[in-house]
Amino acid sequence: MTKPCIICVAITGSVPQKSDNPAVPITVAEQIDSTQAAFEAGASICHAHVRNADGSPSSDPEKFARLKEGLEKHCPGMIIQFSTGGRSGAGQARGAMLPLRPDMASLSVGSNNFPTRVYENPPDLVDWLASEMRAHDVKPEVECFDLSHIHQAARMSADGRIPGPLYVQFVMGVKNAMPVDRPTFDFYIETVKRLMPDAEWCAAGIGAGQLLINEWVVAAGGHART
Amino acid sequence: MTKPCIICVAITGSVPQKSDNPAVPITVAEQIDSTQAAFEAGASICHAHVRNADGSPSSDPEKFARLKEGLEKHCPGMIIQFSTGGRSGAGQARGAMLPLRPDMASLSVGSNNFPTRVYENPPDLVDWLASEMRAHDVKPEVECFDLSHIHQAARMSADGRIPGPLYVQFVMGVKNAMPVDRPTFDFYIETVKRLMPDAEWCAAGIGAGQLLINEWVVAAGGHART
Ligand SMILES: [Zn+2]
Ligand SMILES: [Zn+2]
Ligand SMILES: [Zn+2]
Ligand SMILES: [Zn+2]
Repeated sequence: MTKPCIICVAITGSVPQKSDNPAVPITVAEQIDSTQAAFEAGASICHAHVRNADGSPSSDPEKFARLKEGLEKHCPGMIIQFSTGGRSGAGQARGAMLPLRPDMASLSVGSNNFPTRVYENPPDLVDWLASEMRAHDVKPEVECFDLSHIHQAARMSADGRIPGPLYVQFVMGVKNAMPVDRPTFDFYIETVKRLMPDAEWCAAGIGAGQLLINEWVVAAGGHART
Repeated sequence: MTKPCIICVAITGSVPQKSDNPAVPITVAEQIDSTQAAFEAGASICHAHVRNADGSPSSDPEKFARLKEGLEKHCPGMIIQFSTGGRSGAGQARGAMLPLRPDMASLSVGSNNFPTRVYENPPDLVDWLASEMRAHDVKPEVECFDLSHIHQAARMSADGRIPGPLYVQFVMGVKNAMPVDRPTFDFYIETVKRLMPDAEWCAAGIGAGQLLINEWVVAAGGHART
């Protein structure tokens, strides 16, 4: 039997609006409907952000709680992953939903540039988010926007800040950060295998890059993201 | 004839104090003395930071002007490179000495973590520093603290934000950023050769890492730093 490929569905993200695509699920009810369709089609992880009524990104634990309740009811057994990314809040507000004990949460472990600003993940915030995840039994998906983030993940694993085999995600195609680049993708995999041989990995591409990256991921034995 | 190796002497940096090592040159007069000794020993680039009287980092153009004057007198022909790094000032203050027209200046093109904070190089500041360097005929040394910074340098070269063949420096050994790692070092060189075949490259290691990196650099055909 070959190793199964996990499909992670990112239903909403923090950037796209209804004006970009009317199908983007914004309300919690829309998110639950949309995730259920993906779950029935074979996705096993739901990577979730929540939004305010006007579509702007939110990190309100109340909304995350309603989303989790709905997903548990409509998608039984699906792995729920909340985003602690920096587009939805600042500082510790980014982890305010972790006491809800989702199965997983995204964890950025380094800083990098975004299209128009710095994506700030200062070391003390990273350590605090990791400690909250340990305290509430939440499995991190480590977001690697650059090569040093893979090294940082390995260090955090070695010293116990991230317990168990790691689950890392390569993020490519963000303007002013790492482009969708095949030699880099291959070196990322090599580096993961060298530094943390028991880790699983997946990859996310921004916009048009996702389809190409999914082809690479499936052929290379990683896990896929929509 | 083999290709010559350029030696860049970083006399002061922004962190070490007299209390760490009494030989650290702090005043402009000490910096000129120390650079002259390195120049006579074979260094051809002086990478310079300036300091306040109490040893704290400064970005005062007045001090940079006095340093440049002294270096031109005591080290004729030496290449003068000023730091625009973020430890010595914030925002555009980091580039306030560029109108002095040093031969070179360091240019960080991405953001990353430092031991206790984020090293912030937002895209608009990077672009402004690059435009100041073009306006005053200053050759950038592009500081690459992570792999995506090499890609960013290549993009900035392709679209004219950094003119001419690039001079890039790999920076390794900063806590919470890229460690001193041989496979990464080799992949950095491969990436530079692939994306900008006419670039020259050098490498800086923090503290104890510098000697090891110098061995790698000399064997691989790069330029060295003290
Ligand atoms: Zn994923
Ligand atoms: Zn996300
Ligand atoms: Zn150098
Ligand atoms: Zn420096």
